[in-house]
Amino acid sequence: MKRIEPLAKLIEHFKALPGIGSKTAVRLAYHVLDMEPEKARELAAAIVNAKEKIGYCSVCFNLSDENPCRICRADGRDKSVICVVEQPQDVDAVERMRDFHGVYHVLHGALSPLEGVGPENLRIKELLARMQDGVVKEVIMATNPNVEGEATAMYIARLLKPLGIKVTRIAHGLPVGGDLEYADEVTLSRAMENRIEL
Amino acid sequence: MKRIEPLAKLIEHFKALPGIGSKTAVRLAYHVLDMEPEKARELAAAIVNAKEKIGYCSVCFNLSDENPCRICRADGRDKSVICVVEQPQDVDAVERMRDFHGVYHVLHGALSPLEGVGPENLRIKELLARMQDGVVKEVIMATNPNVEGEATAMYIARLLKPLGIKVTRIAHGLPVGGDLEYADEVTLSRAMENRIEL
Repeated sequence: MKRIEPLAKLIEHFKALPGIGSKTAVRLAYHVLDMEPEKARELAAAIVNAKEKIGYCSVCFNLSDENPCRICRADGRDKSVICVVEQPQDVDAVERMRDFHGVYHVLHGALSPLEGVGPENLRIKELLARMQDGVVKEVIMATNPNVEGEATAMYIARLLKPLGIKVTRIAHGLPVGGDLEYADEVTLSRAMENRIEL
Repeated sequence: MKRIEPLAKLIEHFKALPGIGSKTAVRLAYHVLDMEPEKARELAAAIVNAKEKIGYCSVCFNLSDENPCRICRADGRDKSVICVVEQPQDVDAVERMRDFHGVYHVLHGALSPLEGVGPENLRIKELLARMQDGVVKEVIMATNPNVEGEATAMYIARLLKPLGIKVTRIAHGLPVGGDLEYADEVTLSRAMENRIEL
């Protein structure tokens, strides 16, 4: 087959993106060739621009195009409560809720001995450093509700408690709008355990 | 929610691509931020490069970074047989089959009165011009096996037959209502074999 080199290369690049298979990569590449030249240049510029302009906030390690980030700088945010999450995407999820007014700390992963991720690979040292000025009263562990996330929450809680910091963990239970019939046993038993009086 | 402008823009650009929904766009954007800067620049360059270097072959109107394209120029291809397809992707599909040795003509669409696509919007005039030197003996209509593709094949057959050109249609080995681009090689090869004169 006669390959068109620039096209083959573009397909290859698209295929390297997560969740993009061979056929989607081909479809995307042909779409790019079909775009207005101006639009294609804008797409390329958006990629380079995002990559160049966005770095990590030196306080919370969330992605940001400013340093410190908008959340860490905002007057309206309660600096005494830190919500600890695994990934920058998780900050977006909590922000969408619109009723958390504290600040964040992004670990950039979770402890996973099997994958060789130890405490030194996460932003745990930096989290501890934030406790030094005595402003922080509570740390909410909002790591994922899976084995790695739980282990990470427990590990960090053990480090923070001796400092007199209140460490909490987001609740496990049934998702709102969910169906009891389809809940898995572990979730259901956790929901039962954490029942509250009405 | 505090938006990071370059990130929001990148997500928006990804969302504009075909088959990419909101969540995939967000995942892709975060993936780009996670890439090596060099890789991100390469991805952006591949987009611009493909768009700039690739144009249409002035003979067959397939996408190409040379003019005429490699297939039109190749000595080994039989110039007396033209395979007419709707899209450049369809050329790739036929080429993957590896046993068609003629040349192509890309219409860039199919007749569709409902969507306002008439003969003047397709490369039909250019196809007729290729008949003038008497080299072409057969035109294989490999438009998609759906209503628009059939209509286009019939329309072009009516134009070519008076010129004494044999016009054939690939057989309905392809599932009706399907898409040539995604046909498997065996089915396509069978369809080619069973082509009938129109």
